[in-house]
Amino acid sequence: MMADHDLAALLDPKSIAVVGASDDPGKIGGRLLRFLSEYGFAGDVLPVNPTRDAIQGLPALRSADHLPDGVDLAVVVTAADAARDAVQACARRGVRACVVLSSGFAELDADGERAQRELVAAARAHGMRLLGPNCQGIANLASGAVTSFSSSFTNFPLRDGPVAIVSQSGAVAGMLAALQHQHATGLRYWAATGNEADVSVAELIDAVLDDPGVRVVQAYCEHLADVPRLVAAAEKARRLGKAVLMVKAGATEAGAKAAGSHTGALAQPEVVVEAFLRRHGVVRARSLTELSGLSRIFETSAPVRGNRVGIVSNSGGLGVMMADVALTEGLELAELTDGTRETLRAVLPPFAAVGNPVDVTGQIVQQPHLLTRVLPALAADPWVDIVLVALGIVGPTYDIDTITDDVAALHAEAAARGVLVAVASVGGRPDLAERLTARGVPTFDDDAACVRAVARFAEHSAWLRRPLPAVAPAVAVPLPEGAGFLSEHASKELMTSWGLPVVPGRLAATPAAAAAVDLPHPLVVKLCSPAAAHKTELGAVRLGLTGTAAVERAAAEVLAAGRAAGIEPIEGVLVERMVRGGVEVSLGATWDPVFGPTVLLGSGGVHVEVLRDFRLLIPPLSRAAVVDAVRALAIHPLLTGARGAAPLDVDALVDLVLRFAERFAATGGALPEIDLNPVFVLSDGVVVADALVRVADARHEEGA
Amino acid sequence: MMADHDLAALLDPKSIAVVGASDDPGKIGGRLLRFLSEYGFAGDVLPVNPTRDAIQGLPALRSADHLPDGVDLAVVVTAADAARDAVQACARRGVRACVVLSSGFAELDADGERAQRELVAAARAHGMRLLGPNCQGIANLASGAVTSFSSSFTNFPLRDGPVAIVSQSGAVAGMLAALQHQHATGLRYWAATGNEADVSVAELIDAVLDDPGVRVVQAYCEHLADVPRLVAAAEKARRLGKAVLMVKAGATEAGAKAAGSHTGALAQPEVVVEAFLRRHGVVRARSLTELSGLSRIFETSAPVRGNRVGIVSNSGGLGVMMADVALTEGLELAELTDGTRETLRAVLPPFAAVGNPVDVTGQIVQQPHLLTRVLPALAADPWVDIVLVALGIVGPTYDIDTITDDVAALHAEAAARGVLVAVASVGGRPDLAERLTARGVPTFDDDAACVRAVARFAEHSAWLRRPLPAVAPAVAVPLPEGAGFLSEHASKELMTSWGLPVVPGRLAATPAAAAAVDLPHPLVVKLCSPAAAHKTELGAVRLGLTGTAAVERAAAEVLAAGRAAGIEPIEGVLVERMVRGGVEVSLGATWDPVFGPTVLLGSGGVHVEVLRDFRLLIPPLSRAAVVDAVRALAIHPLLTGARGAAPLDVDALVDLVLRFAERFAATGGALPEIDLNPVFVLSDGVVVADALVRVADARHEEGA
Repeated sequence: MMADHDLAALLDPKSIAVVGASDDPGKIGGRLLRFLSEYGFAGDVLPVNPTRDAIQGLPALRSADHLPDGVDLAVVVTAADAARDAVQACARRGVRACVVLSSGFAELDADGERAQRELVAAARAHGMRLLGPNCQGIANLASGAVTSFSSSFTNFPLRDGPVAIVSQSGAVAGMLAALQHQHATGLRYWAATGNEADVSVAELIDAVLDDPGVRVVQAYCEHLADVPRLVAAAEKARRLGKAVLMVKAGATEAGAKAAGSHTGALAQPEVVVEAFLRRHGVVRARSLTELSGLSRIFETSAPVRGNRVGIVSNSGGLGVMMADVALTEGLELAELTDGTRETLRAVLPPFAAVGNPVDVTGQIVQQPHLLTRVLPALAADPWVDIVLVALGIVGPTYDIDTITDDVAALHAEAAARGVLVAVASVGGRPDLAERLTARGVPTFDDDAACVRAVARFAEHSAWLRRPLPAVAPAVAVPLPEGAGFLSEHASKELMTSWGLPVVPGRLAATPAAAAAVDLPHPLVVKLCSPAAAHKTELGAVRLGLTGTAAVERAAAEVLAAGRAAGIEPIEGVLVERMVRGGVEVSLGATWDPVFGPTVLLGSGGVHVEVLRDFRLLIPPLSRAAVVDAVRALAIHPLLTGARGAAPLDVDALVDLVLRFAERFAATGGALPEIDLNPVFVLSDGVVVADALVRVADARHEEGA
Repeated sequence: MMADHDLAALLDPKSIAVVGASDDPGKIGGRLLRFLSEYGFAGDVLPVNPTRDAIQGLPALRSADHLPDGVDLAVVVTAADAARDAVQACARRGVRACVVLSSGFAELDADGERAQRELVAAARAHGMRLLGPNCQGIANLASGAVTSFSSSFTNFPLRDGPVAIVSQSGAVAGMLAALQHQHATGLRYWAATGNEADVSVAELIDAVLDDPGVRVVQAYCEHLADVPRLVAAAEKARRLGKAVLMVKAGATEAGAKAAGSHTGALAQPEVVVEAFLRRHGVVRARSLTELSGLSRIFETSAPVRGNRVGIVSNSGGLGVMMADVALTEGLELAELTDGTRETLRAVLPPFAAVGNPVDVTGQIVQQPHLLTRVLPALAADPWVDIVLVALGIVGPTYDIDTITDDVAALHAEAAARGVLVAVASVGGRPDLAERLTARGVPTFDDDAACVRAVARFAEHSAWLRRPLPAVAPAVAVPLPEGAGFLSEHASKELMTSWGLPVVPGRLAATPAAAAAVDLPHPLVVKLCSPAAAHKTELGAVRLGLTGTAAVERAAAEVLAAGRAAGIEPIEGVLVERMVRGGVEVSLGATWDPVFGPTVLLGSGGVHVEVLRDFRLLIPPLSRAAVVDAVRALAIHPLLTGARGAAPLDVDALVDLVLRFAERFAATGGALPEIDLNPVFVLSDGVVVADALVRVADARHEEGA
């Protein structure tokens, strides 16, 4: 199935050794053998036990040292000490992959961490891959290769299906499998990575995507490791038309960290994680139930062409409630064509609503074929991308066979045209949801959860429609010397050299030189020093100066204020044209040690940290992604001409963000932070009015 | 039970006539008799049918005119024309209440609306109350008085219980009943009000709260009618320790439009509805599933003393995910005491987490009594107000009897101390959730939904702890003459007369008079006219003027700008002190035709509509409610001293809002709108810098 893959021996082993096998099926070493038998694993099973010749009817080896050549997978279930020896023996015997279920390693203490490093060293020395230690193992439901002790496998017979569960936590993998079973669909892989000494969630996601039987990956992570591999996996998913869904826990922990003094410092881990996952089309869920619900849609449905929803219900109230949630979640209500309305009017009872939501009314009890005629009309409307079928079926009087047939037929037919069909079935007929699910129709018993999942699905489809940004060309960007903060003047010189539109200005060493600066008045005078990041608070900024006398006086005052505050070195004063009108935004960049370059676009002014009106972006950026970010800002209406004002040059802002992000990404981490704030968006162009660049200390902050 | 109540005959009838009774249980008139028998109604049942002497074994009357004296309730199920006659006959015969299931009235056309008015007139003429028409009826599950044709009653035997379902939509009432049945709890009342020609949802909520058996009302509305009655009901609920939960559909503009086409009612502004419900402690849900989940907590739990959550799980991952959702939803994670941690450390395995979330680990399989010791320790911690038990129980190996006993015991015990216990049970053991529910423990199969419902419950408890605002004293507020907008000067004079701190200023008719104004410079000069609402856009404002010459010149320019723009009448120029420093907020008031006075507190400046950083309040206001509103603003950190700035005088802002709201409420609607923007919050006090008052045209806008 994936024989040429690095992890093939782990995901699809033909032979499995169980080191620590037991006759007692209550023990882990016994349970494993039982699972392999119950799940019908047809390959070789080799129990290893130092004291027995046979285990559960299979001939046993006394030691892993006696393993034959060419064993694909060994599972180690012994205590930690014995596990180390076993892993070393397996590695020596040329076993291709090893699952270490034993605990007592890095999760415990420093000794455990050392022991874990020895496991990895032994494995790597012989080219053996290692899952765990301290993990609940892995299973392939197509082959029956279940090498896990999770109760998942004792509770109910898990079926093969289009999902791979890949989780750092075994308990969470178990819950996801239980939800998958509840919704009557199956899974191909079940994997829990534990300590991730070698194989990570990212690598497993990448690997399972190669299996043609896998359509959706349900992932659970508490920390994102092996980021380049995750990026590769996300790209592979996109290429193959598959989806990676993820709960990333620990979302709020980082958010509590206080905002720093710069816009760039706002890029806290959670916002970076969020931006990273969005950037790469990984669909994020906040709970296991949400993950499971999303999976139902991704397992059964093709991408949609848009986000305009047509709702049909047998209860006007339910339709309205779902319309409310749809609009709140970023979907749109489709405006039906006159033709659709006429068709509906001809079919429906006179008192039914033929707008959107369409209400077929309780009449469906008497005329179960109402949906037969309504659904295709709605799905054929060119303005409808998504059909939400809202069924409040509470009694036995409904003909649910007909309803199931109608909805399932539509779901199958509409997908080819990029139209999604999803169902909320609220009330006392769980059998209806079961039947629809069995026919491949994504069905929810929670009306709001249905709409939210559909909204996330539509966002993912929009991401798929958007072309991927071109990989940044290897531009050589000018970089400054030294380390630490640059002065405003040096920062702006650098930004100018990157081709950014910076406000015209000159550095003047003395008040007389300042007065002589040949720029159109009014002017601005600011203290210029690498040590004066917060000039306004120092009283070291003077705005709106007209006439050389005013400029000279301001320069003298600003220099005096700087000296009084003990600022040094003072490079002089920066004399600049004063920018008037427009709207202020801020543009920042931070080099994240894990995720690399991040760019922050937000509303401008000193209060960006307070108002938290910003969007984080991960280069390389597509134009569409930047346009979306600009639209997502609360101040966006100000840019497009709120209250009758003239619209501003949003195109120039988008250009600026693209160029800035491309240049910043090319620095390779040499500049940990840049803060351009404010940037004025004018009716014609944009202009950077303040800039602060920090240069990495080469000894401590080497970039990627 | 509630014999002295106006709606007693509707809610607890002793005798029921069925006008349009039928022998065919498939017909509505037959189904009703079957339900009354199946649900064990012990009172008199009087079928009325023009052609039969007996119906379903009961002696029948030929006409409603033959009804005996003193019938409590008549249900009319005939066609619309016959229904009118039947209602009139019932009214003449002294029937106390009438349920009109027949449709073909106001929901259909103008003729229907006329016919409906006749029904109401006939009923009122004889003091008969009327539910409907075009409704699905009402049921009392304690007495078996089921006078509804909803399939709710055919699907499963609904049980008596602590909930009343009161809905404008019969279909929605049916779904709510189905959800209530699914979660194995019961309901006392089921009511669907249809066209609400007489009895409204608000009046029914008010009435069912009088029943000692009702603890929670689940309400569904598309339009809030009879607002004073709803306020009275909300106050009664608070007094009696009961809760009103509501889905108000039509929250979005399009949703409201859809609801409007469904009910013919006008859209109600969502921000006002939201503020109104919050103000009165009506707990809002966005979907029926959410409503049902909230109900589970309110049915079984006493109010909590705070919002600090302690989480215990058997899966670290599940605990972390729930912590994420808890923080996002406004709950706090409790910081456990050292004592609690020590207890936990003594009880738990060495590798378990004793912080919050507490992770008892998979060890619970081997030691089912782990929770027995962990739960009381957590619930006894003085910093824990809410215990969330997160169970990922996927296999048959767990001792769920012990777990159920432990959790149920804690739930019962903790409530007395104001500590809430709720459970999320995710995975393959639905029997665990069933057992916990049967023991009265609020249990959810969706981890995030559990946390969200708990967060709403904690907010309601906080609302209960907050004293109700004193009813506004009947202050006589000064009101201006005339109609339409007042000039800024007149507006400010009015606000000054209300005792609000307005920036010092004088009206000057000429530039010379302006120059002579005796106020400390710098000054501000503004054109003053009732016709110049947007002065800045006109160029009719000059800031920061120092020296009489500058003031005189500015006044001349401003007057010229006003005349050039054709503004009239021009009262002169307003010369004021210039306010510097502080933070700008806006304070507005609108008199809503349905909800009365509303007060808006938001961030200041010209862009308040764009940034939507505001909170709407409904007087009378408590100080705590205003403090909460201030805290909810995005700019709140600026008021409390962001970035090391000095904190501003938030107390003075709260005083201003309270006084303004009290005065505005006392106007009785004479002033449809007031806009104070900006109001400067300074380090010592607040000052109103601009004001615009509109006076109602007495002919068109008479206040309440």
